[in-house]
Formats: sequence, C-alpha cells, structure tokens
Amino acid sequence: MKVNPRVQKTYEALFLLEDLREILRETSPDHKLNREQEERFKKILSELKKNLEEIENNEGDARIRYITDRIELRAKEEEFININPIQAGGRLTREGRKALIAYGDGYSICDYCFKPFRLDFIKRPPVHDFYQELAEFVGMDQARVVRGARRGFQIVASSLLRKGDIVLISSLGHYSLALAIESVGAIWKEIPLNEKNIITAENTQKKIESVKEEMGKFPSLIAISHIDYMFGNEHDVSGIAKIAHEYEIPFLYNGAYTVGVMPVNGKKIGADFVVGSGHKSMASPAPTGVLAVTDEFSKKVFKTTELSGDVTGREFGIKEVYLLGCTVMGAPLIAMMASFPMVKERVKHWDEELKKSNYFIREFLKIRGNRVVSEMPRKHTLSRVDSTASFDKIAKKHKRRGYFLHDELAKRKITGIFPGATKQFKLNTYGLTWDQIKYLGNAFREIAEEYGI
Amino acid sequence: MKVNPRVQKTYEALFLLEDLREILRETSPDHKLNREQEERFKKILSELKKNLEEIENNEGDARIRYITDRIELRAKEEEFININPIQAGGRLTREGRKALIAYGDGYSICDYCFKPFRLDFIKRPPVHDFYQELAEFVGMDQARVVRGARRGFQIVASSLLRKGDIVLISSLGHYSLALAIESVGAIWKEIPLNEKNIITAENTQKKIESVKEEMGKFPSLIAISHIDYMFGNEHDVSGIAKIAHEYEIPFLYNGAYTVGVMPVNGKKIGADFVVGSGHKSMASPAPTGVLAVTDEFSKKVFKTTELSGDVTGREFGIKEVYLLGCTVMGAPLIAMMASFPMVKERVKHWDEELKKSNYFIREFLKIRGNRVVSEMPRKHTLSRVDSTASFDKIAKKHKRRGYFLHDELAKRKITGIFPGATKQFKLNTYGLTWDQIKYLGNAFREIAEEYGI
Repeated sequence: MKVNPRVQKTYEALFLLEDLREILRETSPDHKLNREQEERFKKILSELKKNLEEIENNEGDARIRYITDRIELRAKEEEFININPIQAGGRLTREGRKALIAYGDGYSICDYCFKPFRLDFIKRPPVHDFYQELAEFVGMDQARVVRGARRGFQIVASSLLRKGDIVLISSLGHYSLALAIESVGAIWKEIPLNEKNIITAENTQKKIESVKEEMGKFPSLIAISHIDYMFGNEHDVSGIAKIAHEYEIPFLYNGAYTVGVMPVNGKKIGADFVVGSGHKSMASPAPTGVLAVTDEFSKKVFKTTELSGDVTGREFGIKEVYLLGCTVMGAPLIAMMASFPMVKERVKHWDEELKKSNYFIREFLKIRGNRVVSEMPRKHTLSRVDSTASFDKIAKKHKRRGYFLHDELAKRKITGIFPGATKQFKLNTYGLTWDQIKYLGNAFREIAEEYGI
Repeated sequence: MKVNPRVQKTYEALFLLEDLREILRETSPDHKLNREQEERFKKILSELKKNLEEIENNEGDARIRYITDRIELRAKEEEFININPIQAGGRLTREGRKALIAYGDGYSICDYCFKPFRLDFIKRPPVHDFYQELAEFVGMDQARVVRGARRGFQIVASSLLRKGDIVLISSLGHYSLALAIESVGAIWKEIPLNEKNIITAENTQKKIESVKEEMGKFPSLIAISHIDYMFGNEHDVSGIAKIAHEYEIPFLYNGAYTVGVMPVNGKKIGADFVVGSGHKSMASPAPTGVLAVTDEFSKKVFKTTELSGDVTGREFGIKEVYLLGCTVMGAPLIAMMASFPMVKERVKHWDEELKKSNYFIREFLKIRGNRVVSEMPRKHTLSRVDSTASFDKIAKKHKRRGYFLHDELAKRKITGIFPGATKQFKLNTYGLTWDQIKYLGNAFREIAEEYGI
C-alpha cells in the first residue's frame, strides 16, 4: 500500500535529524567536525532540504521501509484512522512526542536527583509537582506513577494480601488484575454480571456473603473496573464501594479506561485505591500507570523499607518497598508529564467524545443486521459490535473470508479492528475529530452497500 | 550558559516536524487541509527551512527553552561530555532514537498481536526473535524483557522465596535488590567484602555457614553483582556460583553494569538467573531490563497462570503469573530492540573501553593528591575517585565550596559528577571517543593547574 508522501517524508526528515544529532553527540563538546563528519553533515543537510521540498509538494518515493534491521516504520496514526480498542487513549500528544525525543536516553530525568534520592522528589523536570497534580486529578490524597496499571494492582496486592486471601473481581475483570492477585498467592473470585452485563452493588453483596459462607472468611479486597475492556460498559463503582465499606473491605477502583479520558474522583466514588493506565488512557508510552490512595492506606501501600544490612548496617531510607524504589525513571514518565496538561484538559470534553461515539454507533446500526453488544446509549468510546447478520454473511462466501472486512477498511485507510473478525469485534472512537468520525461511519456504510447488505 | 546553535536548531527542527506530524494526524486519512491547517503547515515549513539554514551556518537564537509547561529541553548528550555514573550505558543509539519517534504511542508494538496474545509471540516487529537473541546474548536458555532489572529481581524472588527465607547479597548490593527481597517478605543478609572491596567465594561460603548456624537454615538464593555500583569493582561471580551450587543454592547473576556493555555468558559463569538493565547498560529507555534463566528454572520463574474463574470458568492461558503477562509493550521495548544490533557489536569492543577508562584514570592520577578508590587497574568504566587531598582542599576555601569543581567542569562542557562532591565521587567513561577521553583528562588537569594543585 502506498504511503502518503508527506507522511513518509516527515519521517525521513525526523530520522535525518537524528543522524545529524548523532554527529553532534560524537563531536561534543567542541563540535569540531573532521572531514568524514563534515561530509556526512553536508549530505544530511542536503537530503533534509530535499525532504522539505518533497513535503511541501507532497511528492517523492519512500526511501525508508525499515528503521533498522527488521523494525518497520510505523505510521498508523498518520496514515489511518485507528480505531484499535486499546490504542486510542494512549496515542501521544504532540508535546509527549517532543519530550520523548529530548528525554529518550535511559536515566534522562535523573540529572537533578538529589537527596533523598527518590523519583517523586525530583524538581527539575517537575516530577514532584506532577505527582501532586496527579493525586488531585483523580481525587485522591497521594499518587505514584507505576510501571503500568498491572503493577498498581500488584503493589496493592503485595501490601494488603496474604496467601489464600480472597479478592473479588468482576466477571469481566482484566487478566492482569487476576495475575497480580495470583502472583502474591491470593485467590480471585468473580462477581456475576447482571442480565445487562453490568456488575451491580447487589451482586457484589451476594458474592461477599457467598464467599463468607463457602470459605469461612470475607474477601480482603474488591477490585472493579469502572469501564470494562470487553463491552466498554459502565459498572456501578459507587454502589459497589458503598457495599465494600459496609463490610469494611477495601475497594480498588480500576480506571484503566477512565483515568485520563473522563473525569474521575476517587474519593467521591468511595475508592481506597485508584489505578489508571498511562498507555491505555493517559496519552503516554507503555509501561506507565498511576496508583493513587487515600491517606488511610498510604502508609501501608507506600511502606518504606524496614530492613538493614547485617554487616554494613546500611538502610535505604525512604525507598518504598512495594514500589521497589523509583518506578518509571525516563522517557515514558517525561512523555506522560508532557501530555498531562492536555490530558487534564481533554477529560473536560468527555461529553463530546460520547456524542461522537454514539453518532458513529447510530451510523453503524443503520447497516441492516448490525447490532451493538455494549449497553446503549454508549457511555464510553470503546464498543463491542456484532455483524453476524451482516458482514459475517459476506465473509462466509468471500475468498478472503473474514479478512475481507479488514481489507475493505484498510483500503479506506481505517485500521484497528481485529483482522478476520466479522462476528463480534471491538472498536474505539476516542480522540477522532468529527470529520474522522463521519468518514468512519461512511466507510462502514459504503462497504455494506458495496456488498449489497 | 549559551547552547550551541546547531544543537538548539536541531531540536527546534525535530519539534517543528512533530508539529507538522500533528497536522498529518489531525487530517488523516485524506490529509485535506482546511485554511487554518494550511496556514499552520506553511508556517511550519518556512520555519523549518530557516532552521536548516541556521544549522548549516551554526547560528541563530534559541527559540525553545521549555518543551511544554516546565519541562526543559535536555541536550546533555549533545552539549556536554556526560560522565554520569549511571547514564553512560543507557544512552540511546541513533536507531533507538528513531524507533522511539515512530513507536512512541502507548500500545504501538501491539498492532500485530495475534494468538496466543503474548508479547514475546509478536513477530512484527520481531519481538519473538529478539527474545531468542537476547537469551543467546547472555548465554542462557530463555529470556524475557522485564520492566527494569529490579522487576527481574522481584520476579525471581516471587517465584522462589517464601516469607522469612534468606537471600545473600553483597555488602555492595543495590537497594533495588534488597527491596525486591523485602517486598515478598524474605530477608537479605550481606556477604562481607574482603580488604580489596571484593566479594569472594570464600566469604560467601563463610556466610552460608554462619547463616545456617544462626538461623538454622540455608539461604534460599544468592544474588551478586558482577560489577558493583559503588566502586565498579569486579566480583568473583564464577567462584561464588560454584560455592552456591555446592550447597544447591540458586545463583542470580546481577549484570546491571555488564549485560550490554561487556560479553556475558551466564551458563559459563554458572548462573541460574541473569538480570540485566536496559537503561543502565543496553542503550535503552527506562524502565527496561532482561531476565534470563536456565531451562531448569524456567517453569518455576515463568510459571503460567493456574487459576480460573469461579463464575465464568475462564482461564488466561499462557500468561506468565510473576511477569504479570505482557511486560514492556511499547516505546521502550522497540528502542531496546533497535539498539540491540549495536549493543551486540559494542560488547566485542569492551577491551577498548577499558583502555580508555584506564587512560583517563592515569591522567586523573597525575594530579597531585588524587586517588582512585576502585580496584586498579580498572576492569570497568565506572570508577570511584578521591580528591580529598586535591580538589577538596580548594573547595574548603572557595566561595562556591565543593560546587566549584562542578562549575569548572561545566564551564568546559563536562557534566555528570555529583554537584558539590569533591571528596569522593563516581564517574563513567563508557562510550566516549578517544578525543572525548583526552579532552576529559585535559580538563581535569587544567582545572588542577588553574587552582595551583
């Protein structure tokens, strides 16, 4: 498939500038160029000039396919409308991408790490302030950046659970939550969905009671996604938190699909812990997440080290045991920080995202046979749809089988649905402009029309 | 301090291209520009052209100080010779930086994630092959990328240790190893250094025996750095592994300062586990690391999930419990992969790095009063030096106190020693060219001369 010349040439220019930057690194600090470097420098500059012309005129053949070895160029977000269910909220902002360029090197944000030598005390870049703002952003007392939401789950699990303890999760709970619980030797049990695929306070209470009856003890933790990954349905986290507290069971709010895209106030919901995902919903690179807690639990979850050296007597001060000290030290953190002002802004426009989500879904439903498996109207941009009675009928007779839909979408520069899926699949409209939303709706309808659905 | 115009303008050009890329994202897939976008586009292009001229002529005022909000531009590697002890081996390669640009978005490397849905099965980009090569690279049977070396320690600790178990670490063991052990409820004990600040097999054996005597049980794990973070000394990992095996105690080789800079063959050393650090020694962004094991331990450490849903009956297949499933999914992994060919190459030139390290140290020792606290000759590029009898004497009378040395080095565009330190400090010459090494040696001698040392 032909790549848009402008996209291609923009990448080429970015890479040429990295070639140039490499010379600056080789020759630092005086930047005297030897003959070979001088020639290289000139060649890069002349190619760059050509590139700019090509960008201007939207022309030119692709010179780069692989960045290096077998790593292809990736231009999904420039070339396509990407409706991948898990990728939408993690697309970087422009500022995030710039920060990544400047702070890519390993320990890049540790230049000004002074006593007490802990990531969240760094003031330059303003990591310290960022942590404060993060806590406020999710309506909790304290926050830490962690190496992904799953590490957030595990940190809570490590600090709270003993072997054999029981944790209630949703029947739609994410596997990483289940693994985090299993990794500390605890056991997860599922709260059943109601007939609308929603976890309710009522079912939570029933499950608490049945666990007590069956296992002779109450669950030690309840951990529920506000929005699940399967349907993008909203679950009654406030009601569940209330029940949890009646039984004095701590409640973990899983905001992997909410923190960073919609307003979240953990304390208002009644959460003891809020976990969010940077790469899922905070316009950040993986592996990043946020773990926020109330003051009540902060000492336990953010416990500092208690052991000391039997030979040397040394201690590790205020290093936090379950966090393993500093968490995300480099590129991903700075990109998360750089994206944050925009993230704080964008959650205010969640209503608009829902309008776009529902608009697209309405368009999608105009195709005969199409269904939406998620709750309606949509309360999230992630939706699970069903085209068993439409696209899948075509797939049955098409020589490319289920891949035909993926092909047809790709032809229209739309990507992100699971290749081959025509029965049920997920998509996420988050962050698309109205033009893109309309284009997307039209594309599906056009395909349906073309195949006589 | 005035930034070199070329450095500044290269950054500006990179950022302008990101501004341009943002337009391509907004207007994807047809890239029709509205009037406002058209104007923005033209403005960016014209600024870019100006930038190229300025780069060519090495001129122009800085237009960017902050990337966004309070995040400053970082040009340490372009402006300075950076001898920061922990940053040298984690500087990105040119290919790593390019990959980071293309794959910054959250789940960027998951585009082609198909059954069985696990990171290390992804073939495009070639994650699967990378994992194989990684295992081979460190001379072990199986490898996984993990979210930092500390997570590597913790994964081994989780899979091997029970509450109250004892782990022997070095008296120079890193705090993150200590925390990883503490985080699973186990206890770390220290092996004493010998008079040369080296951990020996003999002292290891003594400690095993004394633990047995005192605690009534043998240690469950021995975890030792090949090169420590404090002196950059080499410890007798082969001898220690041999003793460990005599007692049937598993041995973890901590290669945070070796894997990626010097050749490492885990099995030859006798390691059951090899842990490396991406951001410390593999030219990768944080938080990345490698955990490699022998076949004997792979089932235990990379255990797959065993629980299933009590309501839904669902299972999570081959997801690895202690790894929490997929580990480093995005930008940091792709940069690690992109840097890897160069990393494989560079370990072959470790001898040359040692030559440069020892050359610099000899120059440094020509200054009267200077000492080296690390073992001699240097077997690593990280060294701890002592200038109590030279620079520190100046510091005592200088109005900037110990900061004078940092200031003088900064004036000469050298960065990375701890600000204010004039008694003992660490530095790392890894990756510097011979020109830079000589410049560095001269700079120290020049400062000494200037202050009459």
